[in-house]
Formats: sequence, structure tokens, C-alpha cells
Amino acid sequence: MKHFLLILLLLHLNFTNAQNNLVKYVKPIIGTEKMGHTYPGATVPFGAVQLSPDTDTISYELNGKYNGDVYKYCAGYKYEDKTIVGFSHTHLSGTGHADLGDFLIMPTQGKLQLNPGTASNPKNGYRSAFSHSNETAEAGYYKVKLDDDNILAEMTATTRVGMHQYTFPKSDESHIIFDLIAGIYNYEEKNVWTYVRVINDTLVTGYRQTNGWARTRTVYFAMSFSKPFHSYGQKNYDEKQPYRGFWRKFDETKNFPEIAGKKICMHFDFKTEEGEKIKIKLALSSVSHDNALQNMQAEIKDWDFEKVKTNAQQLWNTELNKIKINASEDTKVNFYTALYHTFINPTVYTDVNGQYKGLDQNTHIADGFINYSTFSLWDTYRALHPLFNIIQPARNNDMVKSMMAHYDQSALHMLPIWSHYANDNWCMSGYHSVSVIADAIIKGVYNGNANEALDACVTTANHRNYEGIGYYMDLGYIPAEKSGISVSNTLEYAYDDWCIAQLAKKLNRQEVYETFIKRAANWENNFNAATGFMQPKLADGTFKSNFDVLSTHGQGFIEGNSWNYSFFVPHNPTKLIEKMGGKNKFSTRLDTLFSMHLPDSFFAETEDITREGIIGGYVHGNEPAHHVAYFYNWTNQPWKTQYQVRKIMEMQYKPTPDGLGGNDDCGQMSAWYIFSSLGFYPVAPGSNEYAIGSPLVNNAVLTLENGRTFTVEVINQTDSNVYVQKVLLNGKPLPTLFINYNDIVGGNKLTFFMGAKPKK
Amino acid sequence: MKHFLLILLLLHLNFTNAQNNLVKYVKPIIGTEKMGHTYPGATVPFGAVQLSPDTDTISYELNGKYNGDVYKYCAGYKYEDKTIVGFSHTHLSGTGHADLGDFLIMPTQGKLQLNPGTASNPKNGYRSAFSHSNETAEAGYYKVKLDDDNILAEMTATTRVGMHQYTFPKSDESHIIFDLIAGIYNYEEKNVWTYVRVINDTLVTGYRQTNGWARTRTVYFAMSFSKPFHSYGQKNYDEKQPYRGFWRKFDETKNFPEIAGKKICMHFDFKTEEGEKIKIKLALSSVSHDNALQNMQAEIKDWDFEKVKTNAQQLWNTELNKIKINASEDTKVNFYTALYHTFINPTVYTDVNGQYKGLDQNTHIADGFINYSTFSLWDTYRALHPLFNIIQPARNNDMVKSMMAHYDQSALHMLPIWSHYANDNWCMSGYHSVSVIADAIIKGVYNGNANEALDACVTTANHRNYEGIGYYMDLGYIPAEKSGISVSNTLEYAYDDWCIAQLAKKLNRQEVYETFIKRAANWENNFNAATGFMQPKLADGTFKSNFDVLSTHGQGFIEGNSWNYSFFVPHNPTKLIEKMGGKNKFSTRLDTLFSMHLPDSFFAETEDITREGIIGGYVHGNEPAHHVAYFYNWTNQPWKTQYQVRKIMEMQYKPTPDGLGGNDDCGQMSAWYIFSSLGFYPVAPGSNEYAIGSPLVNNAVLTLENGRTFTVEVINQTDSNVYVQKVLLNGKPLPTLFINYNDIVGGNKLTFFMGAKPKK
Repeated sequence: MKHFLLILLLLHLNFTNAQNNLVKYVKPIIGTEKMGHTYPGATVPFGAVQLSPDTDTISYELNGKYNGDVYKYCAGYKYEDKTIVGFSHTHLSGTGHADLGDFLIMPTQGKLQLNPGTASNPKNGYRSAFSHSNETAEAGYYKVKLDDDNILAEMTATTRVGMHQYTFPKSDESHIIFDLIAGIYNYEEKNVWTYVRVINDTLVTGYRQTNGWARTRTVYFAMSFSKPFHSYGQKNYDEKQPYRGFWRKFDETKNFPEIAGKKICMHFDFKTEEGEKIKIKLALSSVSHDNALQNMQAEIKDWDFEKVKTNAQQLWNTELNKIKINASEDTKVNFYTALYHTFINPTVYTDVNGQYKGLDQNTHIADGFINYSTFSLWDTYRALHPLFNIIQPARNNDMVKSMMAHYDQSALHMLPIWSHYANDNWCMSGYHSVSVIADAIIKGVYNGNANEALDACVTTANHRNYEGIGYYMDLGYIPAEKSGISVSNTLEYAYDDWCIAQLAKKLNRQEVYETFIKRAANWENNFNAATGFMQPKLADGTFKSNFDVLSTHGQGFIEGNSWNYSFFVPHNPTKLIEKMGGKNKFSTRLDTLFSMHLPDSFFAETEDITREGIIGGYVHGNEPAHHVAYFYNWTNQPWKTQYQVRKIMEMQYKPTPDGLGGNDDCGQMSAWYIFSSLGFYPVAPGSNEYAIGSPLVNNAVLTLENGRTFTVEVINQTDSNVYVQKVLLNGKPLPTLFINYNDIVGGNKLTFFMGAKPKK
Repeated sequence: MKHFLLILLLLHLNFTNAQNNLVKYVKPIIGTEKMGHTYPGATVPFGAVQLSPDTDTISYELNGKYNGDVYKYCAGYKYEDKTIVGFSHTHLSGTGHADLGDFLIMPTQGKLQLNPGTASNPKNGYRSAFSHSNETAEAGYYKVKLDDDNILAEMTATTRVGMHQYTFPKSDESHIIFDLIAGIYNYEEKNVWTYVRVINDTLVTGYRQTNGWARTRTVYFAMSFSKPFHSYGQKNYDEKQPYRGFWRKFDETKNFPEIAGKKICMHFDFKTEEGEKIKIKLALSSVSHDNALQNMQAEIKDWDFEKVKTNAQQLWNTELNKIKINASEDTKVNFYTALYHTFINPTVYTDVNGQYKGLDQNTHIADGFINYSTFSLWDTYRALHPLFNIIQPARNNDMVKSMMAHYDQSALHMLPIWSHYANDNWCMSGYHSVSVIADAIIKGVYNGNANEALDACVTTANHRNYEGIGYYMDLGYIPAEKSGISVSNTLEYAYDDWCIAQLAKKLNRQEVYETFIKRAANWENNFNAATGFMQPKLADGTFKSNFDVLSTHGQGFIEGNSWNYSFFVPHNPTKLIEKMGGKNKFSTRLDTLFSMHLPDSFFAETEDITREGIIGGYVHGNEPAHHVAYFYNWTNQPWKTQYQVRKIMEMQYKPTPDGLGGNDDCGQMSAWYIFSSLGFYPVAPGSNEYAIGSPLVNNAVLTLENGRTFTVEVINQTDSNVYVQKVLLNGKPLPTLFINYNDIVGGNKLTFFMGAKPKK
């Protein structure tokens, strides 16, 4: 039934001719330089395969010491690099932590080299020089000429299959290198195990098991070649194999089809004519070789590279057309590239037959939903999932179901923190699944059992052993002695608890509501009225001395100092304003944040962002203050929100490789941009409310899944007309600078009138 | 349907009251001292679980150097040792290579120790002293008092579940140590990965993945405790975990339920009253946690240890009653212990739901058969599988099906050489699957597709890249330059090819017959007429110089020198006798073999056997000459067979811990004893013929699966009446000193008349 619906959906999409060609505005190269941590390769919307060039496969250790470069290679590709090591099938988009890079493929010619070489000595390995002038990165398609051997590399993808097309010069010695050691953020012990089975001269299956950011991760593959290889082989870099001495009955380095070990680099050999194309399909599965093969057979039936590419771009176009905008060309590039980046994560984590590996390491069937992985929830609860509730509600429904499946499979009985290929890497603070779940249920997007979802939220929030929750429950805050990020956690728990309370209210679970609405005020416990800042508090109830309002580390915060985090009460700005001395003082304080001069020492310790990712003391490149520019709406100076958000859009998002001021963070930075471009933002997911900002587009039409459209019209839009003069909803003036969810999904029209001066 | 039949079978067995108590004659302790390499623990017939004490968990490396002791611990237990490390669930029986020892459990009290300690400093670890006076080893049951903490340990098993019962003294600090690092023949990199999930306070699941003799092996477990543990924890000995730094949100050492790593030792903590019993069920699966749990639930439903023990011993009794003998008490002990050892391997390798992990690492369903693993075919094709064709034909049918499934899953398209938990460890020479398959089909035991089986044999025998087969096919022998075991292989291939020819003849596959009957004569190419010995031949067709007829290594042989291997033409003794100068010269040569004096240098280089495992130059402790004592039957002096086989039975099999003169080799040594005790032996499996020897029993009744019985009656049996005077089949004199398969399974009676002097 599910498949039938999918076919209907595809048919429907094919006959929807009113689509604009929006793929042309997507520039995946944006964010690949400096701090964006995006990748330029080929993927389809929410695809399980992200087939992309890696410009280095970085080891955690360099001469036995920590190698800081691992951080640069979160997405495998750095625009600044001069060589490409190869093309691998899994990549994180915009994260501040590195992993993945599975199944690296590289075409070469001539003498076999079974090591990647180094950036400083590239000729010593199979890597190749390339130049950006010979490189094309599009949504669903990537192309580059590999200069060393003059090989043209092209790639595209379906949801679960990567397709390669390599155009070779004539040679008796053409090779496809298949490096099973390569991976992003490698370290000596990361490759736990590799298994490869050469079934015939075009079909290879296997798996790779890693102990990385996802601690226990196995990815199966099935790989098919368009042309039979005439020979193949491997180099096994494993050091010790005491069992493999005497009974080695074969020469396992050549044409031996049952390969296993920890450090294996394979090659497949061909004779090629001038301009001959060798194509490869590589399918992934979390479950089995058989499933990988099924995925391949279901998604790419033949060897028509152009058809797969066209389909991939059609899928993108369909998704991008959900928001049609009128804007300058640069804004269109920024907007659709941002929209592209919001539609990359979370990633599909079910096979075509519905199976997936669960957190309990068992094989499960996703019954009636698509299971997703790659939940960077500390980032994405803020704007990405709220965006999905508007423009991708069916997927967000499935994402919540995926979180609930994770919970059901958790021996810890916890919702995901940062879930990642059947693992939780526990990254960052809070328990923000509850925000995503509450928001989806409150907005009517989740069709599962809402009470069970609330129970999961409550159980997670009451897990006393987790990251100070016990102290938080007992004292109302986490003592600074007990946690290095005590303040961030208390503030974020308080917001999350407010989300739980909102959900409980909706479900008439009064007792839960009362418990959690009380906990939602716990942020007050870290507020020092004497200084007006959020500060770490000791177990004895006093504030920790030697407090530095500009520092993050050692002050109880993570990815944000007290200047930014002190505004982290998205669910109760009114009370925060009161605590901070009223609306005028609060406005002034926001002004200071956006204009202050930071000392150099600040930049030395701040992660994930460029110096350009900061406006005054406001750090847009990290997430904790993403809502702060909208806080002026609660003061008497809402036009400052309008000014600041336009400034942030202008400064932090540019249509260039270095155009992102910080990690895109699985689409959160991009989702902020999409919302802000449209003129509103969800300050507190879990509420129905969006704060009005200053739209960047001239107009926008959102095609909703309920069949309605939501239109944003902007009158007098110019670069300098950043101030909103008035806003009409269906022709009637908005009474406040807020709209709600129903105003959007009800199929309405929002009209902004802009001007060069603040409307006071 | 299968299950229904099983139930019928069980009912049938339960109502067969004519069973003798034969379990009392089984002494699993036999062979645990010196070279037998058997284990004393609890298993059921062909059980997947072998729950047995390990007296050391031996590392391949000792201070960075090869540790020769690994060889001693093939079965985990050495009778000579003073301490027990713990009780693990998988063991090889009688092999000359070490592996397994999964999921080691040890009860302790007092201060936690999470390392095993050493034999020389046992108090430094959790191991305990024990003494044989407090030890009981029975078929299906093992008991020992652990002296250090005065804990009584008892264990029994079903096919797929081990059951433990530990009787503790009173203490607030009683522990069950669960060591996932421990294993037999460990080395630094052997533990590939471990995963454990603590589901609740009595249920734990997980898996262990090793790179051992079985290169790619994963075993899943489900473990249940009869009493809830009040706390648990782990020590993770992994050195490097760069991903596990900052985001460690829990204290993972205590009560943390999702554990993964390479080197993990766990503990479960209890308060116990004086004499309190804690019981544990641990089920295995090759497929999944769920399957392990299913296996547990299907096989042991409650906590009645005595019932499980009784069932296990009933299963043994049923199997042992298939051969009822009348003999001296010592002979009964030797005989039934040997029969016990023949019914240990191969081991069941399907879950109760029929699933198993295949050689291709995929999950398969064994459709209509039980899949078996642990095929030590170089050993067991000789007498073990031929014994099964008489007394376990249904199982041998399934074993051939298991070999065919292995073949179907092999990317190499080869039948198993030494198959082992979804791996082939390629141990030893020849391709003796073909002997087992041919023998089973020729004797009507295999009900699968015989032509497909022949095709598999032919494909395997034509695998040119395997161990010199290409040379063998081209030249008729393997040049000594190309293989260290060129002569052994050529001789064994020739015999195996003869088996293929016999099978082809039966199936009227004339072309195959002709090819392989020609190959069956290839042994002649290594026969040097000038010396009368099998010798290594060079590529140029000349024999290699510096030949030493007594040496094994460097002479082209394995586990046997030329003196023994020169007789390895089991399929054509007539031609061999002719080549060796006729019957009289041949007899004299056999006399010399059994009486020669060996230099000390011989013992220094000969593996797997004690000095007592040798009679003259005849090495019974290794297999290549197992048929040789029966060769006198082809000369004019058959009484010398009778003399020698009685002597071998007397010298090589004793009812003591050191009673086996060599490795039991998965039951081959024992199967030789069973056949010889009954008075006949299959010299060339693949033929219908058995050579008459000299029975050791007074009489024997074999209850066959076809409902018939085969009776061996021995008149005038004494220790000195070793010579056969006449033999009657159903009362009629045998025309030759041979009987055939139908004489046995037709339901007949064989009567031996014995005397103190040879009947010439």
C-alpha cells in the first residue's frame, strides 16, 4: 500500500508541470570553504547516500599526537585543498564533529597505488590534483576532472544508491580503487571490521563496521560495475594475523573473493578504450548485503547515468518548488541553497523493504513510516523541525516516529540526543527531542500515540543519571561542581520542560503539566540578579566566583558564553525582560550584544565559526542565540529585530564557497535563513507563535501538503527598506508582530509593507 | 512439520524403556591430560553449546613473543592445572588448533577483581584454585568446588543453551564475572567487537565478534539470571577512544546498559544467603539477539536445573544405547567415552527457528534440515562420517546438506575444507568433503540432489588456484617447489578423486568417472620405485634430493612422514602392494613400520601426539596411517591386522585423563576405536567395504535408524585371544575378510570366533 501511494505521488509529481527550474539556484559548493562544513557531492532529498569528494581522509593522530585538522574535514571536502582522495558515500552536512566517509572509490590509471598519499606529497598515492575550474557541483550531481590521470569523474544518487561514471583515457591499466580503510576522522582503531565478497566479475558485496562518533556502526554495501573487471585484488594492512599463517591456501592478494580484515584497500582492474565510461552503482543498507542488493535493484535498474541524474534533479526540483520565491538572483541562490541544505538531514534509514537496524542492534521493520537517522537535535529543534512542520509535515511525522522507535529500542529508556546510524553519540546539552515532539503534536503533525510520546518525554526528562538531571530535579539547577556545562543544561532543560508542559496541557495531563511548568522556571536559578547574567551556581547555592561573562569554557556553558546564553529563555521572554530590568534596559542590553567589541582571546576559544560569524558579541555561527535577534519584538523597539535579522542574513549568508559564517549544523543555520527570509521565526518551538522579522524575498508562495498555499507578499522591498511599516493577514492588519501556525497552514496571505525608516 | 516430527521422535525416545544406563560409563575427563585436547564440561549430543571450565585463557603472545602454550589449551582445560579461570560456552573437542571459549562466566565473592590473574599468581585475579577430588565430569553435567571463595559450580546444557548453578556462601558481595575479553588462543587483535545490552535486572543480550581461526565470526547471546542483580558494571580495557571524550554523559562503568567495545569485562552483583543458588541460562545464536532469546525460551522454560541435567543425560543415554556392548568395565568406559566423543562434533549451527549465518555472512534458513558446523574433515572423513552412515544416518544426511549449503554460499565455489562457524579455516590437506559426500550417497544416506552434489565435488576438485590443484591437474602431481606439503596433497587428492569417480559411476556420469578415475592414479607419480617410498618430486620430473624418510617438515608431508604416508593409497592397496614388490615384501614393510626404533629427533618435530602415541614408526596419534594396520588384510598375513589393532586399542585408549595417545580430532580417534572394537574398519570410505580386524567387545548390538539391529557376537573373547579363527555372517562363513555396508544395515549378525594363535 505504501509503495502504491509512493507511485501515485511520483506520478503526481511528474504531471505537475508548473514547476520552476529551481535546481539551477542550488550551489552545493556554498559552505565548503572555511566553517560551513557542507559537502559539494550528490544526494537526493533526505537521501541515505551522500556521494561526495573527500579532499583528505584525516587521521585523529598525526605522529602520535592529536591532529586538529580532523575538525576541518567534518564533511570530507575543503574548498581550499588541491587534491581529491576519492569519492565516498556517506557525509554529515554542516556538523561540528566528523565521522562517516564510507566506501571510498577512486579511479586511477597506470601503476597501482593502494594508499591515498598526502596533500604535501600527492604523487605518492592514488589521490589526484584537481581544479575548481573543472568542477561542477549541482543538487544531485557532481563532476570533476581528475588531473593526474585525466579521468572525468561524475556522480549522482538515488535515496540509497550512489552512481558513479568515470570517463577514462585508453589504457591497459585502468583501475577502480576501493579503499575500505579510508574514512573521515579515522584513528588507529576506528575500523573495527571489513568484509567483502566478490560474487562475480561485476558484483561485490560487503560491510564496514566502525567505532566512530557512532560507536557501534555497521554499513553494508552492494556494488555493481557496468563493465566486468578482468582482475582484482587487495592489500591488507592489518599487522597481526597469527591465525592466518600456515593455512593460507590461496594467494589472497589477487582474485580472492572472500576478504575480511580491519584495514583493506582493494582494486579492480580494467582495460579501457579512449573515452570509455565505467559506471558503478553502490547501494547501502544498515541491515544486510541482501538488503543493499535489493535497494540497488529497486532504485537503479539499468546503467543510464543521465536518467538517474535527471531523476535526482527532478526530486530536488519538486522539493524546492514547495517554496517559490521572487527575489534577486543572489538571494535566490542563497535561499534555494539554504532550502537544499535543510532538505538533506535527517537522512532516510530504512531499506526499500522497510527494514533497518535499531538502536538495540536488532533488525526492525518500520511499519507504516520511513525511519530516519542523523538527528542533530540540539541544533535542529530550533528552526529545522519547525520548518518541516510547515513544509514537510509528512516527513516530520515520520521523524517523530523514528525518535519514538529509538526510545522503544533504548535500554536506557531515553529519547535521542543526537541519533546517528543506530547509535546515540550524546552530543551537546539538553534533551531537545521533547521540543520536536511537542511541537509536532501541538501543531497536529504527529499521527502516532501522543500520550505515549508524552510518556517518553517525561521518562527522558526524569533520567536522574543523565548529565545532572538528578541535581536539576532536586535543586532546580545543576551545581557547577557537578558539570562543566551546568548553566547551558539548566537553561535548556527548563525550556525543554516547558515544551513537555505544553504537550501535557494539550493532552489534559494536568499532573504532568504542573510538574513541568514548575521545572520550566528553573532558568531563574542560574540568573544572578546582582549582575543580570546567567551564572554557574555552586551546590551551596552561591554563585561561582571568578566569573567571566565572555568565556564559554570553564563557565558552565557550551558553544556560547553568558552574554549569549543569558538570553536563553525562549519560552518566557516576558519574565526574562522583567528580571533584566524591564523592556528598555533589555533593549539596550540587546543593542550592546549586537555592537560590543570582543577581545582577541574570545576568538581563540570559540569553535565552529569564523570571525565573520559574529556580529558584535552575537554569535550567529553557533545556535544558542538564534532566537535573540527576534527578542526586540517583546520590547518597545521591534524595528531593531527587523534591522538585525536583515543584517544577519546579509553578513552570514553569501553565495560563495566561504559564504556560511559557521557550521550549517544539519540545516539549522539554513532553516534560520529560510524562516527569516520569509519574514518570521519560531522563537519557542512548542508554542504556536512566530515572531515577525523582516522578509528578504519580494514574495514567496509555499505549497503545503494539505493542498493549500501560503503566500508572502512584500511591498516596497529593497536592500535598504528593511523596516516593516505594516503587515496584513489576508488584507487585515496584524494586531501584534506575531502570527501563528494556523495563519500559515490555513492557506492565507501575509503582506509586508516595507520602508527605509523604522515604524516607531 | 519438522518440529512435529521432532516431538514424535522425543516421545518415541521417552517411551523406549529398554535403555541401559550407559551415561555412567562416559568419563569426559578422559583425554583432558596431555594430548587428547578434549574438554570435561557439559554438552548434549552435537550441541551448539559446550559449557566447560577453562583452566587458562591463553594469549598468543607472551611478552611480545609467540606463546607455545596456546597449543595446549585447544579445549580450554588442562588436567594438570591447579586453577580454573571460569566457564565458557564454546569449545572444540580434540583439535590440534585452538579457538572459541566464548562468554566466560566466573562466580566470585568479596572484592571485585576484573582480570583473570595468572597461574603463577592466581590471587591477583578472579580465577580460583580447585582440586580434582572436588570435581565431577559426566556426559551433560559438570561440577567443581571453587576453593578460593568456597563456591560450588555446576553446569549442564541443552542444544543451544548452557545452564549454570552456583551455590554461594552468605555475602553482601557476591559477583558473577562475565568476561568478554577471555577466549581461547587470544591475541591482541582477536576480539574484534563486543556489544552488550542490559535489558532489565535479570536479562542481558549481546554479541561477540572475533578474528580467530574462524576469521569472521559473530556469536550472539541472551543471558538470564534466576535472581535479579542489584547492580552491575564494566571495565573497558580499550586503549583509545578519541570519540568518547567530551560526550560521555554517563558513568559508563556502573549500571550503564548499552555497552560496546573491544575489551570488556563485566560484573553482576548480588547479596546471597548461605547456600543460596544463583542460576544462569546463556543461549547462543549465530544470527541475532532475538534468536538467542528464542533459543533460550524454547529450550529451557524454567529454572529447574535438575530437570535440564536429567534431560541432557537422557539425550546422551538415548544416543549411547544405539550401540549396546558387553565387555569389561574398562572397555565399556573406553567405548562409551569414545562414542560420546564421536557424538560431539559436528555441532548444530541452526537456531530453533531454522535460521543460521551462512558462509556469505547472510542469514539463511535451513529448509528441511539441521545445519551443522565444526567439520574437521581431514580427520573425520576417515571413520567418523562412515560411522555416522551406520549409526547416525539422518544426521549425516543433514551434515552433507550443510556442506552443500556451504558450497552454495561460497564465493570461491568450494566445498568446505574445515568449516567453522560460517568460515572456512582451510586447515590441512586434500578436499575430503568429496569423500564424505560420495560415501553418503553411495550408501544411500543422502536424500538431496546427488548430481548437484557431484557437480560441487567436481568444481571443488578443479579449483586450480587452490593449494596446487592446477599443477596437479596439469602434471599429475604437485611440484615440491610449489608447496610444502606437495606429497600429502597429491596422495590425498588422488584418493578424493577416486571417491568422485565412484560417485560418478553410481550416477552414470561416465565422463566424470573417466576423468577422475584417471586422477585417482596420480599417487603413482610421487612413488619412487628406486626407494619404494612416496617422495617429493620437482617440476622437472626428478625426485627431490636430500630426502629423509623419517621427517615430515620440508619433505612434502603434513602430520606424517613418508614411512606413514607411503601407505596412503586406501583406494588401491592392490596396486600399491604390487608397486612395493608384492604381498610378502609389503607385509615385511608393515612389520617394520610397527616395530622400528625412532630417533629422538623424530619426537622433537612431531606434533599432536605423545611418545606413547607411536608404535614403532606407526603414528596413531595423527590420522594419515589410521587405515594402515588393516592393510595386512590385503597380504597373506591378515592375522597381523588382528594383532596390531588390538595392540593399538590397548596402548592408545585408556580410561584415564591421559588416556588418549593423540588429539581426539573432533571424534576421529574415537570413531577409529568404535569401529575397531566392533571388529571392522572402513579403509576406503566411498567404497562399500569394511576390512575385518579383531573385535574388543564380547558382543554388541547396534540399533539402526531403519529399525533393524546389527549384532556382533564374539566367541572365546579374551585379552590374549586376539586372533580371528573364523567369522560367520548370519551363521554362514565369510568368504573373505571383508564385509559390506548392506551386511551391516541389512540387520544381520556377525559372529567372530577368537583364539590365541593366528589362523594362518
